[in-house]
Amino acid sequence: VTSDFAIRIPALSPTIELIVDADTLRRHCTDYNGRNTGQALAIVRPGETGDVVKIVALCRQEGVAVVPQGGNTSDYGGSVPAATGRSIVLSLSRLNRILDIDLTNNTARVEAGVVLADLNRKLAEHDRWFPVSLGSEGTCQIGGNIAMNAGGNTVLRYGMMRDNLLGVEGVFGNGDHYADMQPLRKKCIGYHIGDLLVGSEGTLGVITKAILKLQHLPKALVTAWMSAASLNDALQTLDMVRQHLGERLTAFEVINQLQRRVIERYQPALKDPIAQDYEWAILAEFTDTAGQEALSASVEAALAAALEAGAISDALIAANGAQRQAFWRIRESVLDANNAMGWAVTHDASVPVSKLPAFAERVDKEVRAQFPTARFLAAGHAGDGNIHLGVFFEKADFDGLADFKRATQAINAQVFQIAHALGGHFSSEHGIGTKHRMPFLTYTPASNLALMRVLKSALDPQGIMNPGKIFDTAEAV
Amino acid sequence: VTSDFAIRIPALSPTIELIVDADTLRRHCTDYNGRNTGQALAIVRPGETGDVVKIVALCRQEGVAVVPQGGNTSDYGGSVPAATGRSIVLSLSRLNRILDIDLTNNTARVEAGVVLADLNRKLAEHDRWFPVSLGSEGTCQIGGNIAMNAGGNTVLRYGMMRDNLLGVEGVFGNGDHYADMQPLRKKCIGYHIGDLLVGSEGTLGVITKAILKLQHLPKALVTAWMSAASLNDALQTLDMVRQHLGERLTAFEVINQLQRRVIERYQPALKDPIAQDYEWAILAEFTDTAGQEALSASVEAALAAALEAGAISDALIAANGAQRQAFWRIRESVLDANNAMGWAVTHDASVPVSKLPAFAERVDKEVRAQFPTARFLAAGHAGDGNIHLGVFFEKADFDGLADFKRATQAINAQVFQIAHALGGHFSSEHGIGTKHRMPFLTYTPASNLALMRVLKSALDPQGIMNPGKIFDTAEAV
Repeated sequence: VTSDFAIRIPALSPTIELIVDADTLRRHCTDYNGRNTGQALAIVRPGETGDVVKIVALCRQEGVAVVPQGGNTSDYGGSVPAATGRSIVLSLSRLNRILDIDLTNNTARVEAGVVLADLNRKLAEHDRWFPVSLGSEGTCQIGGNIAMNAGGNTVLRYGMMRDNLLGVEGVFGNGDHYADMQPLRKKCIGYHIGDLLVGSEGTLGVITKAILKLQHLPKALVTAWMSAASLNDALQTLDMVRQHLGERLTAFEVINQLQRRVIERYQPALKDPIAQDYEWAILAEFTDTAGQEALSASVEAALAAALEAGAISDALIAANGAQRQAFWRIRESVLDANNAMGWAVTHDASVPVSKLPAFAERVDKEVRAQFPTARFLAAGHAGDGNIHLGVFFEKADFDGLADFKRATQAINAQVFQIAHALGGHFSSEHGIGTKHRMPFLTYTPASNLALMRVLKSALDPQGIMNPGKIFDTAEAV
Repeated sequence: VTSDFAIRIPALSPTIELIVDADTLRRHCTDYNGRNTGQALAIVRPGETGDVVKIVALCRQEGVAVVPQGGNTSDYGGSVPAATGRSIVLSLSRLNRILDIDLTNNTARVEAGVVLADLNRKLAEHDRWFPVSLGSEGTCQIGGNIAMNAGGNTVLRYGMMRDNLLGVEGVFGNGDHYADMQPLRKKCIGYHIGDLLVGSEGTLGVITKAILKLQHLPKALVTAWMSAASLNDALQTLDMVRQHLGERLTAFEVINQLQRRVIERYQPALKDPIAQDYEWAILAEFTDTAGQEALSASVEAALAAALEAGAISDALIAANGAQRQAFWRIRESVLDANNAMGWAVTHDASVPVSKLPAFAERVDKEVRAQFPTARFLAAGHAGDGNIHLGVFFEKADFDGLADFKRATQAINAQVFQIAHALGGHFSSEHGIGTKHRMPFLTYTPASNLALMRVLKSALDPQGIMNPGKIFDTAEAV
């Protein structure tokens, strides 16, 4: 049956590519960090939207699951198939055309497989950019960014992927093609069906195209590194700079002292720009369409006011591109440093920005009460309420823990519980995938789950779309 | 049966108010412009979300339609019941509490019945505003703004209602309660079910609460009136000011010469700020969080560059609040002037901004070929691609037309067809209601309609929610 099925796929259309060699299968069935792996009958690479319609129709007929895959950079197992093998990986990588760029309308029409960094390279030639900025931008694809509702470093100013979309095209699990591809900022199109695909992690349908809002490339840039004694002070600084600079504030990241020390131990070259001891580093970036001098002067005035008010104790402004890169390299080394230097249980929770100090304080206190050798890590997007809090163990301490998995679960349960008690949510921008299905079921109200199941049944009645993800605890169709 | 049914409603909960007197019924069953009218068994005013759950459950049981109603300011019949009378009007007007305002998080949690202008009055006390700006803001309610996906004058900068929402609470027609009320900019909550309510015009469920993104009140403001020889020149000006001023450009409206003359005939006090004859007026507004002098200087520099490039022939900057109001009063008098001075068939179509000149030219030419006495009107949101194009007849000329209704239909068909041929859409920000069901069915792809019906059946299986609207050509349940 398996080989029969695979053989029928290329017959659907001359632009469909079928790959069944073991190496390619293995590569597409394992995610980038090697943590999640599954089985598939074949890797199928359509060349046109029409191919996707035909592939989904055949898979419905045969009861074969469809696992849409972009750059396969998901952290939580969302982009690889389950272990049963009754599935195909539908790779969008050949749907990688930038169909048009309309400079007056400030929009681009793209296929789902366009790599985020490739798009921005092309747009830069036209003095534009697409303001989603992610660590994986060299590999991740627009379709995957939509399916995950990607966030990143510039959400504060530009919002999530969802906020930067004007429409999508896709194919739902019930076989229906959907197109909302008019590049308009205003349109009454009835139910906003395409938005169901945003953040659905491939469980409702396959995204094939999108219309993206573009921005003019900023011409002025200021990057600042500051020291604050507390998260409260960091938030006061946030308020002050936002009041002065409005949307020019593009990023507002914080990193606590332990996290910076772990990074420095990992790579001494990544040393803290401010020599004295202090608790919270703030990395803020400001951009503007024009007026470098005016922007620099405004930022300097705002930081002077924050210093004056005692919200920050020191502030450095990057004097050149190399200094800016040095600031950002510290921020971007968090994951590698934690993995190299110890055991870190990190999180992707958000709370209202006003609740960040309470969140950090409670996590620090409550986790240490249970795990005395644990220490509190924090690095993330304070301006969005999304600090990636973590709990760090020196390797020696963690090896002493009886049960790694149980400890992780216990810490997660505590952190998630505290986030929700403060009006937050355990998951912000990394998706649910397979890894976070259980907390998803715990923290989603029962009637919301009931509605999700109503929609899943309506739009993917056979359950062929990416089974086993988000809220589906059965591993296979 | 009717009175039996009505009597059972207040028994559901002490906080439900039932109104059955003829005057109130008539008022809630007719829309503000008197064009659409229907029948209802009762006006029901819940006091809590729980009341709405109970009301929907009873209506499902009895097969009575539910017509959610906010400020009843819909232009196209979306907010009033059909003529059959087997319905209740569910007025949200008592759910009018501002539940909280979080200044650090820049969010407000509100009930659906809060009047837009009341919210902004309250927010102004805290140096904040909710950036949706509409002619009906003194009457329209947040829930209605969401149900219609309201647009308005500041979409260029802040987007539509949808873009300013962080989540909603509501009750679907299948009885399920939905809540996405965590005030977070990032959250992985599974399917974005609340977004289905945005723009659904009450046909899927009732919106009961919302979380809104706030903005700091701008401290600097510049309003300019310019003259341009063509729409192409106006778009060149748009590009130049946006390149210099980025998001500080908050509105970019255009008004053509005929439209301005109609306004002047209507009220001579509303005379054109620029004395000489010219084709297109541009009304642009720029705001910033701080720095009035810097903003004024930047705008002046950008307008000087546009003058230099020949994109505009003249430019006036409002010297004070009275002058600014005088500029805006011209823009806001369009509807009243057209109604008073002749017959105008106006439209709410959008096209990509780059296609606006072709759109205007084709409408002008093709409509006049069919109706030689017609003249071409235009006033609207050029920055969004949403110019409200219109066709104007002097009263005498229009009276000469054989059939008013058929002429309107013929003009609409032409304008809608041209918009779609240019990659646009016939409807932008005024909804579909009952009035635009036929073009909606014409211009929505069949597979999109099929998906809409799948969702309608799944979320409102008995079809009790606001029957007869958007794509439902049966008038009643």
